[in-house]
Amino acid sequence: MKATIIALGSELLSTTKLDKNSLHITEALELFGVDLIGKLTIGDNEKNISKAIKQLIPHTDLIITTGGLGPTTDDVTRSAVAEALGKSLLIDPKIEEKLRHRLTLVNRKMGEINCKQAMMIEGGTALENMCGIAPGICIEHQETTIFLLPGVPREVDHMIETYLNPWLKKHTSENGIQKRIERTMLKIACIPESEIEERILPAYKEFGREWITILGSPGEVILHLKAQGEETHRKTKLYTMQQRLRELIGNDVFSDQADWSLEKAVGHLLANQQNTLTTAESCTGGLLAERLTRISGSSDYFLGGIVPYSNKLKTALLGIKKEAMQKHGVVSKPIAIAMAQNVRLQYQSDYGIGLTGIAGPSGGSATKPVGTIHIALAGPDDKTITHHEKFFPGNRNSIRSQAAHWALNMLRQALHIHNEVSAKTKFSHNAVRDH
Amino acid sequence: MKATIIALGSELLSTTKLDKNSLHITEALELFGVDLIGKLTIGDNEKNISKAIKQLIPHTDLIITTGGLGPTTDDVTRSAVAEALGKSLLIDPKIEEKLRHRLTLVNRKMGEINCKQAMMIEGGTALENMCGIAPGICIEHQETTIFLLPGVPREVDHMIETYLNPWLKKHTSENGIQKRIERTMLKIACIPESEIEERILPAYKEFGREWITILGSPGEVILHLKAQGEETHRKTKLYTMQQRLRELIGNDVFSDQADWSLEKAVGHLLANQQNTLTTAESCTGGLLAERLTRISGSSDYFLGGIVPYSNKLKTALLGIKKEAMQKHGVVSKPIAIAMAQNVRLQYQSDYGIGLTGIAGPSGGSATKPVGTIHIALAGPDDKTITHHEKFFPGNRNSIRSQAAHWALNMLRQALHIHNEVSAKTKFSHNAVRDH
Repeated sequence: MKATIIALGSELLSTTKLDKNSLHITEALELFGVDLIGKLTIGDNEKNISKAIKQLIPHTDLIITTGGLGPTTDDVTRSAVAEALGKSLLIDPKIEEKLRHRLTLVNRKMGEINCKQAMMIEGGTALENMCGIAPGICIEHQETTIFLLPGVPREVDHMIETYLNPWLKKHTSENGIQKRIERTMLKIACIPESEIEERILPAYKEFGREWITILGSPGEVILHLKAQGEETHRKTKLYTMQQRLRELIGNDVFSDQADWSLEKAVGHLLANQQNTLTTAESCTGGLLAERLTRISGSSDYFLGGIVPYSNKLKTALLGIKKEAMQKHGVVSKPIAIAMAQNVRLQYQSDYGIGLTGIAGPSGGSATKPVGTIHIALAGPDDKTITHHEKFFPGNRNSIRSQAAHWALNMLRQALHIHNEVSAKTKFSHNAVRDH
Repeated sequence: MKATIIALGSELLSTTKLDKNSLHITEALELFGVDLIGKLTIGDNEKNISKAIKQLIPHTDLIITTGGLGPTTDDVTRSAVAEALGKSLLIDPKIEEKLRHRLTLVNRKMGEINCKQAMMIEGGTALENMCGIAPGICIEHQETTIFLLPGVPREVDHMIETYLNPWLKKHTSENGIQKRIERTMLKIACIPESEIEERILPAYKEFGREWITILGSPGEVILHLKAQGEETHRKTKLYTMQQRLRELIGNDVFSDQADWSLEKAVGHLLANQQNTLTTAESCTGGLLAERLTRISGSSDYFLGGIVPYSNKLKTALLGIKKEAMQKHGVVSKPIAIAMAQNVRLQYQSDYGIGLTGIAGPSGGSATKPVGTIHIALAGPDDKTITHHEKFFPGNRNSIRSQAAHWALNMLRQALHIHNEVSAKTKFSHNAVRDH
């Protein structure tokens, strides 16, 4: 089955807006193994829409439009499609009655303008809109089925769920089952895309390169895995691929969930181990604390942070001596370590992070260029200190993001190792008790 | 002149990627008054691309494609367009030589695979790519001109600048001048879209509704203004509209620059008045400090911030008494004011901000629901205190963003008023001196 998506609306041809509804429709098509052969965006022009539909019908089994079903004069989808199919438009009394009822509920009167939304293309089926006013339409013509969906994103999602998915399920049941695609992912922090690619080369060979897509952004690589076919086969294949990739990549994988961020993984480990954290950050200006506190429940483990942006506050808040800053420079290993140790000790947490660096664009030098960052992690006991000196390329914003990201990942790794060690210790304790 | 944009690449038909290059191309088209009648996205399929080009040629004066000019087998734009025009593909020895030279510069050898990028459509002109390897192509066919641009965003921008804009300038000079569109904007903080709409009603009448677009997002409204026609006319109209709208909206306008954020406007005022700032924020977790320090040079006025997330740290860092927190509750006017005053006094800044609230999803009560925020601003002298109690709807993320945004705007307004008062004082001083 071949499909085309058409997004309708002149605002989608402007310099600021993109059609995002098609992404959700594409998800539905992929799940049922339908080939999306193209996407179109057309303005509110009846002639252009009608022409496009006419041209597509001979080459497409399924056409899905979004937008242009509203009551105003620039909403021309219904009439354009009717014109393309050579059908007439009629007021559907049932829809009219439902519209009148819905408008009464929100204290509005049915005006002449709303009647347009009760128009049905001859031979079509109305798709009742439970999230809004405009009903959708489904109509068959020759070998092609056309779905007319509204443009408001949550209304589109509702219509996909309620009408499109069941239709797809029914009409792809023969060979659709064999083509259905399911996806999962693995998220990796702070390793370059090229290095991940090298590590997973064996998996490319074992599973086929087309099933693993690697997508890198600064500080994060996501491996998108997909499998096709009947349900048990798909799920088993995804699970096997995921296990193999975890084996190849090691503990740099921090999640397999789309909605898990690095701070969520860190928070999960801290909460599990009942450990607390404080932060002292200079060049990231609060970004580290902000990311940690994005997570609901972070008050269980994050006691607080300080942003001693000026040297005066580094002394006032952390007791870092002016002489030490002069001797080593503020962006240095000793200062980062002092920040981590002092914030941990002064405010009594298990872990403390100290972060200092040059985010630019000014402030760099030959020995300490813009992008130089020192990160230190103190804890969980008084003696344990980890320090990383890093150089991050990019602009101010990108350097700050990468620095906060790296700090979170340093903590994640420490917690991860600590987690494994405790698990082993617990195991041996049990073993001893068993004897 | 009518134009169509075609984005090529199977990844653009996936569930995660959208064609963004078309936005920049649209900007160029708008500037020269060209009507964009539609956008297409097609996968790496030679037959489908070729068919689409053939169908478009009779209806379009200008077709611009992006993507599919790389060296690998899935890059089929050149051959698809050649096929659609009934032209052959030939190796262009000049391009081949240039490619060889470019690859040598980056220590790579010219492989057979790269030769593909030296292929030219018979009758076409090569567009040298100074930002990458793949050259573009411009070719005329019947009444239609086709531009083949690469897919990498910065290469597209370079080609728009170097080849497309000059071409458009030349070919739209007759009636294009009359149709050219220029844009500007006004940015407004913390006023609902509907209220702005009411304030600017007279301007709709005076200038015509189609030239003013109002776009609202949480905490910010942007008015996009446009004017069409010959240069002096356009610029005068934009200036007049802007002045009139500023008059109608008042000092809630914080900028007319696309790249000015609220924190940039605040930073500008602080730096101008040579004032310093410290912050104490609880529920926003560092977001306020982070936004302030996004601005390069913020160390001139931002001394630092503290994030006393736990009550323990509210006492340790700000000297806020346990009893006071128990009496009023942590989310209260007295605590917000104490936070603002104490951070200002302890760390010796001109202004201090205190922010406490319930970001949720848990922690709310009947009298203090999730979304309740107290913000206090202390300074510039010991007596001046401003306090706002706000309720922000939405989820955790949205509540935090709105709270930080509101705090920034409170400070901006205080600085703005202070600025005007000083300006007036200076003026009267001068007046006195003059006598």
